[in-house]
Amino acid sequence: MSEVDHAARAASEAFATFGWLSGRKKGELLRAIASRLEAGGEKIVEQANAETSLGLPRLKNELARTCNQLRMFAALVEEGSWVDARIDHSKVDVRSMLRPIGPVAVFGASNFPLAFSVPGGDTASALAAGCPVIVKAHPAHPETSRLTARAISDVAPEGVFALVEGYEAGIDLVKHPLIKAVAFTGSRRGGRALMDIAAARPEPIPVFAEMGSINPVFILPGAMRERGAEIAAGLHASVTLGVGQFCTNPGLVIATHSNAFLDELAQKIAARPCAPMLTPSIADAYEAGVARFASLVDRRAFVEGGAALFTTDAPSFLRHEELMEEVFGPSTLVVECESRERMLEVARSLEGQLTATIHASEGDDDRDLVKILETKVGRIVFNGYPTGVEVAPAMVHGGPFPATSDGRSTSVGTRAIERFARPVAWQNAPDAILPDELKEGNPLAIRRMVDGKF
Amino acid sequence: MSEVDHAARAASEAFATFGWLSGRKKGELLRAIASRLEAGGEKIVEQANAETSLGLPRLKNELARTCNQLRMFAALVEEGSWVDARIDHSKVDVRSMLRPIGPVAVFGASNFPLAFSVPGGDTASALAAGCPVIVKAHPAHPETSRLTARAISDVAPEGVFALVEGYEAGIDLVKHPLIKAVAFTGSRRGGRALMDIAAARPEPIPVFAEMGSINPVFILPGAMRERGAEIAAGLHASVTLGVGQFCTNPGLVIATHSNAFLDELAQKIAARPCAPMLTPSIADAYEAGVARFASLVDRRAFVEGGAALFTTDAPSFLRHEELMEEVFGPSTLVVECESRERMLEVARSLEGQLTATIHASEGDDDRDLVKILETKVGRIVFNGYPTGVEVAPAMVHGGPFPATSDGRSTSVGTRAIERFARPVAWQNAPDAILPDELKEGNPLAIRRMVDGKF
Repeated sequence: MSEVDHAARAASEAFATFGWLSGRKKGELLRAIASRLEAGGEKIVEQANAETSLGLPRLKNELARTCNQLRMFAALVEEGSWVDARIDHSKVDVRSMLRPIGPVAVFGASNFPLAFSVPGGDTASALAAGCPVIVKAHPAHPETSRLTARAISDVAPEGVFALVEGYEAGIDLVKHPLIKAVAFTGSRRGGRALMDIAAARPEPIPVFAEMGSINPVFILPGAMRERGAEIAAGLHASVTLGVGQFCTNPGLVIATHSNAFLDELAQKIAARPCAPMLTPSIADAYEAGVARFASLVDRRAFVEGGAALFTTDAPSFLRHEELMEEVFGPSTLVVECESRERMLEVARSLEGQLTATIHASEGDDDRDLVKILETKVGRIVFNGYPTGVEVAPAMVHGGPFPATSDGRSTSVGTRAIERFARPVAWQNAPDAILPDELKEGNPLAIRRMVDGKF
Repeated sequence: MSEVDHAARAASEAFATFGWLSGRKKGELLRAIASRLEAGGEKIVEQANAETSLGLPRLKNELARTCNQLRMFAALVEEGSWVDARIDHSKVDVRSMLRPIGPVAVFGASNFPLAFSVPGGDTASALAAGCPVIVKAHPAHPETSRLTARAISDVAPEGVFALVEGYEAGIDLVKHPLIKAVAFTGSRRGGRALMDIAAARPEPIPVFAEMGSINPVFILPGAMRERGAEIAAGLHASVTLGVGQFCTNPGLVIATHSNAFLDELAQKIAARPCAPMLTPSIADAYEAGVARFASLVDRRAFVEGGAALFTTDAPSFLRHEELMEEVFGPSTLVVECESRERMLEVARSLEGQLTATIHASEGDDDRDLVKILETKVGRIVFNGYPTGVEVAPAMVHGGPFPATSDGRSTSVGTRAIERFARPVAWQNAPDAILPDELKEGNPLAIRRMVDGKF
C-alpha cells in the first residue's frame, strides 16, 4: 500500500491548489505535456514499438493523436465555458458551476500504449477538469509507460501526477479513500472487477470503464446488391486494422446472403498472415476464442496466426449466447439473415455496444433498425466502418453496459471532461468569494446561463 | 414479480415511442399533469395532510412547488437546447445529442408527499428526458400516492407511467432488467441498499439516491459578535421547520463560543412542543437519536416530544463518529470551537453534505473554510439557512457521498434531467434519418455546438 498511499496523499494535497488552477494555467500544463511528448517522440515511439509490435507508422499517428487530445482539452479549459456556469438572480441568489471531483485513478489499455494509456484521453480530461491523476501502468508496455510518465512528471506540479505499477497497486488504488473516480480501458472482466471493488467501498466512487464490444455491422439488401464487394474490402481492412486489436473492431456482421460478398471477404481474410499481436497472452486468448467459435459455427476462412471469418444463420446466432462475446483480434462472424424481420430480431438481441454500423442504399428501409440500435450503442456509423474514432467535440466513445460501465459517459471528445466534475452551488455569496466563473461581472468572459438564458 | 414485470415491460414498450416524442409533446404532458394536480388540489392536499400531519399551508405550498417543477421541465424540453446537440463537419461528419436512458424507477420520500414523491422532481425530470417512469409508493402516504398517480395516468400515454406498492415490489423493480436507472430520496440505509442491489445486477445501472445530511452551519467570530441572537432565531426556525424533517435540516452548528447565542437558541428550543412527526417509526427513530446524543454530549435544551439542542467541544466531536450521523428531526448539535484552526479541523473531518452554511461578517476570514467545504458539499449558503431549496436552473441539490450516491448529480434544478440521458453519436448519417435536433438546417432552432463553437 505504501507507494499507492503516498501517491494518493500527495494527489489529495495537491488537489487543494490544482483544483483551483485557472483554465489558462491548466492549458499551459497540457500543452507542455504535449510538447514534451513530441520532443521525446522518436524514443517513445521506438520503445512503444518494441513493446507492442504495433509498427512505427501507427505509433507515430498515435503519438500525434495523443498530443491532439491534450491540446483539445487545453483549448477547452482555456476558453473556459465547459464549467456550465449558471446564475439565478431569484429570491435568493444561486450560482453554480462544475468543479473537479478529486484525485482520479487511470488504468491504461494494452492496445493504445499512448492515446489510451499514461498520457491518453483519460489523463488529459481529468487534468483538464482539475483532478490530480495516478496512472496504473499496463504491464504490456512498462517502459513506454515510464517514459511517458516522466514527460508528464517533468512539467506537472508536485503531487498532480504519479505512475504506479503492478496488479496489487491497481487494486489498492481503487480502494484508497482519497481516490474519487476511476477511468479504465480494457477487458470486460477487468472493468467489471474494478466496478465491483468501487461499488463495495465504504464510500462508493464512479468507475468509467470502456470495456469494448463486438460493434455489429448491418448490411441491408440494397447496399449488398449495389456494393457488396466494396463493403467486403472495407470490412476486411477494418477487421484486420492493428491486428484487430481495437475496441471498435467489427466482430459481427449481420447481412443479407451474398456469395459475392462472402467470397470476396473470405479471399481477403485468407490472403496473408497478420503481424504479431500485442502480447503472448492476448494471442493465446485470440486463439482460444477462434477455436470456441469454430466449435459452434462454420469457419469460412482462416489463416494460421491470422484473421478468421465465420458464418452462421440468425437462428443459430440467437441460440448461442457465446457468439455475442468479444474475440479480441482480427476475427469476424457473418450472420446471414433471410429477411428484414430476422435482422431486426438480431438487433434487438444485442447487448450494449460502442458502435453499430449500417450499410444501406437509397431503397433500403433502415428506420426501424436505427431506432433499435440507438438504444444499444454510443455511436451509429452510416456506410462506413467502426474503427477510427475522431478526436472532436461531438464524438461519443461510450455505450450502454457492457460496452462501458456507465452508458452516460464518453472517453473521447470534449464531453469526456464531464466524467470528472460535479456541480457546486454558491447561495447569496459575496462577489469577492465567488470563483471568477461566477462573479457578476464575468471577468473570464465565458458563456453562462443567467436567469435561465444563455 | 408479476405486477412489476408487467409495468416494466409496458414501460419498455412505451419507451420506443415516448423516447422519440418531441419536446413540445413532452411539454404538453408535463403541463397536463400539473393542471390535473391543481384541479384535484384540494383533495390531494387534504389527503396528504391526513397521512403526513405536515399542515395545509405547507402542503399547499408543496403542491405549488410540484407544479412549478413540472412546468420548469416542460419549458426546458419545449425550448429543446438541453440535449447538448453537437455537430462536427470534420473528416467524418459526427453529430451527437443526449438521448433518454430508458425506463426509470422512482422511490418517493416520506417527508415530501408531493414534491419528492409520485409527481415530484424525479418523475418530472425523467419524463422530460423521455423516460417512462415507475414509482414505488412510499408507505407513509399510500392514498396521496394513489391520488397523484391517477392524475398522471389519466394524461400519460399507455405504459409511460405506473405506480407499484410494497417493499418487495421496490426490490424487484431495481433488479428488473428493463429498468435502466433508479432515483431515490430517503435514508442513507435505504439508498445504500438500492445502490448495492443495482451494482450487483448482471447489467449494473446508475442509482441517484439523495440520502440527506447534517448540513453544518459555521458561525465565525465576527458574525457571532455582530448578530449572534439574530442567527439563533434564524437557526431555530430552520431547525424546527416542518418538525425538522428536511434533508437540508441543520443538524450541526460549528461556532465560536457565545453565551448570548446559546441562551437565545436554548430558550427558543425549549419554548414549545412541535407538531407530530410524519410517522410513528420516524418519531421513534428521532427519540432514539436524541437519547444517543444525550449519552455522548451535553443536552442544553429539550422539550418532551419536541426539539433538542446539544452542545459539545471540538475534541469531543472529533472523537465520536456517531455525532456525525443524521438525527432526522428537530435536533441540532453546537460544537464550540476556541480557534479558527479548530473550526477548519472540524470542517476537514466532515463527510459529504448536501449543504454547508457560513455566517461571516466583513472582518471574518472564511476563504480557507470555503475551500474545504467546496469539496464536501453540493451547495454553500452564505449568511442564511440551508432549508429552502429554490426550484431554479442553477440550483444544486446533491453533494458527495453519503449525501447522495453520486456527487456528480442534482435532484433539483434543470440539471436533474441529465441523470436520465446519455450521449449518442450519428456518423455520416443521411440528413433524413437524423433526429430534428441534429439536422443540418436546425429545424427546431435550438442552441448547438457546431465545429466546437456555439
